[in-house]
Amino acid sequence: MTILRLPTPIHEMLGLPPLEKGWVWLVGAGPGDPGLLTVLALAALQQADAVVYDALVDESILRLARPGATIEYAGKRGGKPSPRQRDISLRLIELARAGKRVVRLKGGDPFMFGRGGEEALALVEARIPFRVVPGVTSGTGGLAYAGIPATHRDVNHAVTFVTGHNSGGDVPDDLDWEALGRGSPVLVIYMGLKHLPRIRSAVLAAGRRADEPVALVSHATTPRQRVVETTLAAVVEDAAAHAVEAPALIVIGEVVRLRAGLDWLAAMSGKVLEPDPLGLQPAPRQRA
Amino acid sequence: MTILRLPTPIHEMLGLPPLEKGWVWLVGAGPGDPGLLTVLALAALQQADAVVYDALVDESILRLARPGATIEYAGKRGGKPSPRQRDISLRLIELARAGKRVVRLKGGDPFMFGRGGEEALALVEARIPFRVVPGVTSGTGGLAYAGIPATHRDVNHAVTFVTGHNSGGDVPDDLDWEALGRGSPVLVIYMGLKHLPRIRSAVLAAGRRADEPVALVSHATTPRQRVVETTLAAVVEDAAAHAVEAPALIVIGEVVRLRAGLDWLAAMSGKVLEPDPLGLQPAPRQRA
Repeated sequence: MTILRLPTPIHEMLGLPPLEKGWVWLVGAGPGDPGLLTVLALAALQQADAVVYDALVDESILRLARPGATIEYAGKRGGKPSPRQRDISLRLIELARAGKRVVRLKGGDPFMFGRGGEEALALVEARIPFRVVPGVTSGTGGLAYAGIPATHRDVNHAVTFVTGHNSGGDVPDDLDWEALGRGSPVLVIYMGLKHLPRIRSAVLAAGRRADEPVALVSHATTPRQRVVETTLAAVVEDAAAHAVEAPALIVIGEVVRLRAGLDWLAAMSGKVLEPDPLGLQPAPRQRA
Repeated sequence: MTILRLPTPIHEMLGLPPLEKGWVWLVGAGPGDPGLLTVLALAALQQADAVVYDALVDESILRLARPGATIEYAGKRGGKPSPRQRDISLRLIELARAGKRVVRLKGGDPFMFGRGGEEALALVEARIPFRVVPGVTSGTGGLAYAGIPATHRDVNHAVTFVTGHNSGGDVPDDLDWEALGRGSPVLVIYMGLKHLPRIRSAVLAAGRRADEPVALVSHATTPRQRVVETTLAAVVEDAAAHAVEAPALIVIGEVVRLRAGLDWLAAMSGKVLEPDPLGLQPAPRQRA
């Protein structure tokens, strides 16, 4: 995606609410592909005086900000403690009080493991007006670019999204993995790569099959996207063998098998897709 | 949002991939607010020869389609059997074979209870090229407009999205509600209004507290959005008393309490937000 040069500001052209001076918009940037920005997010970037962004926001998205906007990094890397959360909130307050139009840009969705709620409450306390602009979360959008549906009628009527680390960087200890593993046919784990062995053990202990399919989706929706298909039994070894990089989604469940039929991105490069990846059709079709 | 009149097609302006003749794009329309369309979705609508849409897609979004595009309703209403799924797929194939640029527009995200996978596999079988354009799912974006975060650090490290009915219109019988209720601190149920009494019973049987907060979010992100806050004990009666309309999200969990602090939409109309809705701060602050 290229930088916009529009004759009229995009929010005016689209009749969207303007980002006013002294306001903070908590904006989801989506999983990476700039095409997955919402139009509200794009319009916000085009109006911003200041953009405060996370580590997970793609460079190609920052380039869409208004020329002249200040771009500040407030990155937190997965797994590390984040003593600076309060500092980030204070910076947002400071910028808003200086009369800036502030975009707080977060990877994915601000309210899906994005700590948007914490920052918003700090704004409330400081009486700074704000708006939340939801984004496509990587647990759905990132999976879709890997050819894996979060849900599929013949497979699952529920899907659980889990964060693989808490604010201290550990596997959250308030999770009942046994119940999660038993109750949720598909688990999508964000930022879980570091704790993959412990997550695998917990899920196996919940009674999930060792040959259950697993996918690791790294750098989802970006040009660096890579997908490793494996099983619960082999996931730790395969993650190492393929040098899977963070950020990565871990997908556990039968929906992973659908990738043989739904990997539309690879199909654009010639991969032949399988119309019946689950083997549900009563008899194989004859092909002339 | 108004109809675009751009000097240059938006996909060219943004350097997005074009929607080619004979292709079908399975596009998520998001929860309702046209501002939550992705730029890829907007660009697709602006290029489409044919738009085949669902009941859950807002009229204001259809108005963004290219003037001259044919707009076809392929609606399925929640709770009813959908004998026409095969017909919808055949129609997409027919349009693509006629050389049209086809947008299959679905509410929310095509792969989150959207049956996008089924339609895509029918396209694979017919050898029609396709792309998936993820959208903001209502379980995150719709909640955000109600001031409820799907996750919040102090509350939950996991969230489960469930569909309240299967393809036959019943509560899915392959769900282990007991394990879901025990394992997942926050449950977000799509299209569950019709089966609210059974869902309530199942969740209570899983050991959830009767006074656990519940929100019903109806017509999320649209001008008709309404939110009812209640408890598990009272949800069935309150849904009736407030005449809550479908489509509605059912949110069960402590994140609902955050609405007192995060209802940014109501704050725009003067609602005073509470900076500490969970009562986590060690001591109440003195206010001058």
